[in-house]
Amino acid sequence: MKLAISGKGGVGKTTIAAALVKSFAETHQTVYAIDADPDACLAAAVGIPGDEAANIKPVVEMRDKIRAVSGGGAFYVLNPKLDDSIDDYCHARGNIRFMRMGDVKKGGSECYCRENTFLSALLSSLLLDKDEVVVMDMGAGIEHLSRGTARGVDLMLVVVEPSRNSINTARNVMSMAQDLGINNIKIIANKIRSDKEKEFIEKSFQPGEVLGFLAFNNTIWESGMEPDSNAAGGELLVGMREVREKILREVGGQ
Amino acid sequence: MKLAISGKGGVGKTTIAAALVKSFAETHQTVYAIDADPDACLAAAVGIPGDEAANIKPVVEMRDKIRAVSGGGAFYVLNPKLDDSIDDYCHARGNIRFMRMGDVKKGGSECYCRENTFLSALLSSLLLDKDEVVVMDMGAGIEHLSRGTARGVDLMLVVVEPSRNSINTARNVMSMAQDLGINNIKIIANKIRSDKEKEFIEKSFQPGEVLGFLAFNNTIWESGMEPDSNAAGGELLVGMREVREKILREVGGQ
Repeated sequence: MKLAISGKGGVGKTTIAAALVKSFAETHQTVYAIDADPDACLAAAVGIPGDEAANIKPVVEMRDKIRAVSGGGAFYVLNPKLDDSIDDYCHARGNIRFMRMGDVKKGGSECYCRENTFLSALLSSLLLDKDEVVVMDMGAGIEHLSRGTARGVDLMLVVVEPSRNSINTARNVMSMAQDLGINNIKIIANKIRSDKEKEFIEKSFQPGEVLGFLAFNNTIWESGMEPDSNAAGGELLVGMREVREKILREVGGQ
Repeated sequence: MKLAISGKGGVGKTTIAAALVKSFAETHQTVYAIDADPDACLAAAVGIPGDEAANIKPVVEMRDKIRAVSGGGAFYVLNPKLDDSIDDYCHARGNIRFMRMGDVKKGGSECYCRENTFLSALLSSLLLDKDEVVVMDMGAGIEHLSRGTARGVDLMLVVVEPSRNSINTARNVMSMAQDLGINNIKIIANKIRSDKEKEFIEKSFQPGEVLGFLAFNNTIWESGMEPDSNAAGGELLVGMREVREKILREVGGQ
């Protein structure tokens, strides 16, 4: 199962992605956690200390390796069961395999097109077993996904908070996802502080579109100042188990 | 004076940018408000209603017009005093001239490189009078700015909230800005709820780096659900006048 997580910056996308990763790691043998948003920090959120995270080779460098092995040309199919080269770019932590797309850029360097192209290739070529899950933390901009890549995404989760701006971004993402042929798109509402806010979100989407509501959590807000915060644990992880089961029904029931 | 505003998604960058625009509009004759972040909504934040905003032509389309006028080749210098073609892409509102870089993309389309290249050209070519200011709302990724463009930026403001992630993003932005030769970089701390949070930010930067602290404002949070919210007005606008004067001293004192 391949899940992509998108949404406006600051809605808690990465914390939600990390909680989902941890939640699937309880029930599935391997969870690939892919950090594909240059403005995110999924490594810290899944509990990888900063110094270890800094040593993880970005997956985009794998391209050269793949080229060297295959003698150039098209990407070959990566089957983690048959080919251990992918492990060089994975940071293992229990059932979690963390990967990050690219490095932070230098000023005056080029854009992230190379990373995005590679992300498409990687997503298309990862062959998964039943007990394997991919959770990919993306930015709000998914326009660079190709149709071929998008076909590999079983479910696009768009995180919103109770603000009009985050809902507008969600609508743009949903529209782009539909352009790409992704049919299964659901909303996760985060940082809900009142019934009024819950109703605001419910009214903004079609019935059935919102997969779950997660309460605003002051502990998570405050843990943002800690060096190795565990924002994606505790209460949130408990709430996320319910979301996980809904996702399994959603994708399994297609 | 050309100001660029950056920072992690969700820290309140756009609200701060809009409050700065409104604040400069009180003292300067023309303020160009440029929305250069595809995941932002500066138009709404400066008070342009949604239906009017939807009709504003993105500046990237001006490229074709410039090509047509100049017969191709390099960009020519845009002097708004001499050339009114720029007005076709500006939405005027009092002293504010709002411009947006590009349209929201369709899924499967290309990246924002074209917009970014054009942004560089536009920024370099805008000739400003003493009483004119440019406030540009950028995303966290400024790596695409060219050195030439960056030289035109008088001050880079990086917005943070009291979270380690937003501070890490700020450090990356500052490092990229330095690579680009931008020497004047300051921090604006937003959403401060306690002395502990203020101290956390102070300890994270060098003395003098933080230009201002803005309190967490529940009214702003709640106004996020309103259709035409005025989050960048009221108390925030009052606090922003002080920041504006500091900016004028900062840039004037170079």
